[in-house]
Amino acid sequence: MLFLGFECTGCRRFYPPDLLYCCSSCGASLDAVYNYERWLASLSAEEWLFRPGEGVLKYRELLPLRPSASPISLGEGNTPLLKIRNISNIMNIENIYIKNETVNPTLSFKDRAQAVAVNAAADLGLSDVICASTGNTGVAAAAYAARAGLGCLVYVPAGTPEEKLAIIRAFGAELRIVEGNYGDAYEQAAREALGRGAFNLTSTYLNPYSIEGHKTIAYEIAGAFGGVPDWIVVPIGAGPLLSAIYKGFRELRLAGWIDRLPRMAGVQAAGCAPIVKAFEAGDADVAPWDSPRTIASGIADPLTTYPADGTRTLRIIRESGGAAIGVDEGDILGFRECLAREEGIVVEAASATAMAALVRLKEQGWLDKGQSIVTVATGHGLKDMAVSTI
Amino acid sequence: MLFLGFECTGCRRFYPPDLLYCCSSCGASLDAVYNYERWLASLSAEEWLFRPGEGVLKYRELLPLRPSASPISLGEGNTPLLKIRNISNIMNIENIYIKNETVNPTLSFKDRAQAVAVNAAADLGLSDVICASTGNTGVAAAAYAARAGLGCLVYVPAGTPEEKLAIIRAFGAELRIVEGNYGDAYEQAAREALGRGAFNLTSTYLNPYSIEGHKTIAYEIAGAFGGVPDWIVVPIGAGPLLSAIYKGFRELRLAGWIDRLPRMAGVQAAGCAPIVKAFEAGDADVAPWDSPRTIASGIADPLTTYPADGTRTLRIIRESGGAAIGVDEGDILGFRECLAREEGIVVEAASATAMAALVRLKEQGWLDKGQSIVTVATGHGLKDMAVSTI
Ligand SMILES: [Zn+2]
Ligand SMILES: [Zn+2]
Repeated sequence: MLFLGFECTGCRRFYPPDLLYCCSSCGASLDAVYNYERWLASLSAEEWLFRPGEGVLKYRELLPLRPSASPISLGEGNTPLLKIRNISNIMNIENIYIKNETVNPTLSFKDRAQAVAVNAAADLGLSDVICASTGNTGVAAAAYAARAGLGCLVYVPAGTPEEKLAIIRAFGAELRIVEGNYGDAYEQAAREALGRGAFNLTSTYLNPYSIEGHKTIAYEIAGAFGGVPDWIVVPIGAGPLLSAIYKGFRELRLAGWIDRLPRMAGVQAAGCAPIVKAFEAGDADVAPWDSPRTIASGIADPLTTYPADGTRTLRIIRESGGAAIGVDEGDILGFRECLAREEGIVVEAASATAMAALVRLKEQGWLDKGQSIVTVATGHGLKDMAVSTI
Repeated sequence: MLFLGFECTGCRRFYPPDLLYCCSSCGASLDAVYNYERWLASLSAEEWLFRPGEGVLKYRELLPLRPSASPISLGEGNTPLLKIRNISNIMNIENIYIKNETVNPTLSFKDRAQAVAVNAAADLGLSDVICASTGNTGVAAAAYAARAGLGCLVYVPAGTPEEKLAIIRAFGAELRIVEGNYGDAYEQAAREALGRGAFNLTSTYLNPYSIEGHKTIAYEIAGAFGGVPDWIVVPIGAGPLLSAIYKGFRELRLAGWIDRLPRMAGVQAAGCAPIVKAFEAGDADVAPWDSPRTIASGIADPLTTYPADGTRTLRIIRESGGAAIGVDEGDILGFRECLAREEGIVVEAASATAMAALVRLKEQGWLDKGQSIVTVATGHGLKDMAVSTI
C-alpha cells in the first residue's frame, strides 16, 4: 500500500491512517500522503494515464485505500472531455474544453469522492455514513452507501427541493430536514457523526479520504488532452474540487510526465464570493460571507464556520498563478442557456459559472485567445431545471 | 469507407447510401451492410474491443458514415458494466451485470443512435432533423442537433410531462404537441419530414442510419465482460435496440473474436406486450396491441402502424434461442425500488423491466443459476421520478 497517512495542511504534523477529520494540534484540514517513490518505480505515463478498468478505483495506488479484491464502484469517472464547437466564436477563445462530470452515475462529480469514501469506510470498519448536503453530495452518498450496504443519514436544510429528497429516499437513505440553512445542517451532521462513530462525508475539506477521489479528474484530463491545458476553470464553494485537481497535476509533474502545472481559476457567484473577495483584496485569509444570494446552489457556501477551507483554496489558486473570479446571476443563466442551445449540454447553474468566468478572465487580461482551457461541468442540469428560465 | 449501403430485411434488395427509410419494393425496414472483409484485414480483437477514443464514433468503420475530421459527439457510450452485488442472493442468480446506459450525455441509450444520426445528416447534406418521441429520443435528438447546429423539430403526444418538454426546449428545439397518442405524433412527424426533406430520427426501425449506433453496446460488453454473456436482456418497444446489439455480436463472431452468440431476451410490460404475445403463441407475425397500459412509458409502443417492426425483433429473439418476457406493473415498480436501494442505481421504469424479467426467465426454465446475464439499463430514473412510489 502506497498510502501512508495524512499531513496537516497547517502545522505539517503527520497522522497514520485512521478515522480523522482535522489536525488535533492546530485544527487545520488534512492532506493524504503517499510513497510516491514506490509508485513511480513501477509505472510509465502510458500505463497510468490510459489505464483500462473500472471507474476511479483503477487509480487505487494513489487513493487512501487498502488493496481490495472487490472494490465498490458504480463506474464513476471516465467522463468525456468535449471540445466546445459553437461558442468559441462568440467568446473569441479558440480552445475551450468541457470536462463533463454530469455523466457520472448520480450526475455529478461528487460520485468520485463517494466512491473513495465507501471503500475507505470498509477499510476503517465503519458501517454508517452521514453527510450534510444541499443536493449532489446527499444523492451521491446515498447511492454509494446503498451499493456498499452501509447505513446512510443525510441532513438537508429546509427548503431543499422535493425532487432531490425523493432521490435520496429512493436509495434508502434516512433524511433529516433541518430548520435553518446549510450551516445548521453541517453542524448537526458533524455532531451526529461524532456521536455515532459514523463516517462524515460532508464534502468540504472535512473528510480527507473522499476528497482524494477528485484527483482522478486531473489524470483523465492529462490523458485525453494529451498534456496540460493552460487553464483549469472550476466552480468552487469551499474549493476541495479545485484543490484536488491541482494535486493530481502535481503528482503527474512529480512523475515527470508533464513539465508544468495548469493555472487554476476558481469561480464563484458574485452573490456568494468569499474567496473571490479575498483574492481581489489581496488578503491572506478568507472571511465568511454574509447572506449568500445566488441561483448557483451547488457552490452557494458562505464558509460561515470553516473560512480556513476557503483560505486553503485561495493559496492554491495563487500558487498556480491563477485567479478567483466572480460572475453575475445574469451571466450564469445566459451561459447555461447558451451551453444547452449551442453545444447540447445541460448543466446545473453552478456549472455554468465556469463558462461565464471565461469572459471575465479574458477581459481582465488573464487569458489569451489561443490558450487552452478546460472548464469542469460539475453537475447535470436535470436535477436543477426549476432554477432557471430554460 | 466500409459502409456499402442498405439491404431490405424483407426482399433483400440492395440500396446505395441515400436518404432512405424503407424498401421501395416491399416496404420492409432496411439494414446497413459493410465490407466486412476489408474491415477484418486490418484489425485485431484487442484493437477493436479496447479502442481508445471518443464515444460511439470511434467505431466509425462499422457505422453508416463517411470519414470525417471533426465528427460530432457528446462523448456518448463507454458506459460502465456493473456487476450486481446485493440482489443476486435474493434472485438466486450469480452473475448478473447491468450495462448502465443511464450515464449517457442525455441519460439514455438513445444518445448512441443520435450521435450517428447527426453525423449521417451531415453526410447527406441535411440541415434539419425531425422526430416523434415520448421522451428520451426527443431529448437526445434535440441535444445532438444543438451540438451539430441542425434545426430540430420534436413531435410529442399531449400529456408528455412538462419536465421533458422543458429539456427539449432548453436545447433550442421546436416542439409540437400533438392531440392524440404516440402513433399520431409518429404520423405527423413522418409527414412533415417527407415534406421538408428533413431527416426523420424517430427511433423505431425507421431510420436505418441511427439504429447502427446501438451496435456499439455489443462491442463494449464483449470488451468489458471479456467474451460473450449467456444472456442479454433488453427492454423492448419495437425492439431496434435488441436487434442492433445482436448484430454487433454477430459482427464480432464473423471476425472470429467470439465463438458463439448470446441468447437475446426481449422484455415488455404485460400491459403492452405485442411481441411477447406473438412469441408465446408461436405466431410468425406480431400484431398491434390494443390500449397499452403501463408505467414503463419508454417501451409502451403498441406497434399500431408498424407491427412488422415487432416481427423483425421476434425473429431475432427466436434465432438467438432467446425469449420474449412480459412483466407485471408491480414487479416493475418493485425492481426499480430494489435496484436503487440495494445497488445504488436509479433507472426509469422501462429499464426495471429487465431485472423483473430475470425472475420469470428462471421460473420458466430459460436460465440457470450459474449463467451470466447482462441486462441493459436504458434510461436514468431522474427523468422519470414521478411515475413510481420511490
Ligand atoms: Zn496541524
Ligand atoms: Zn424489400
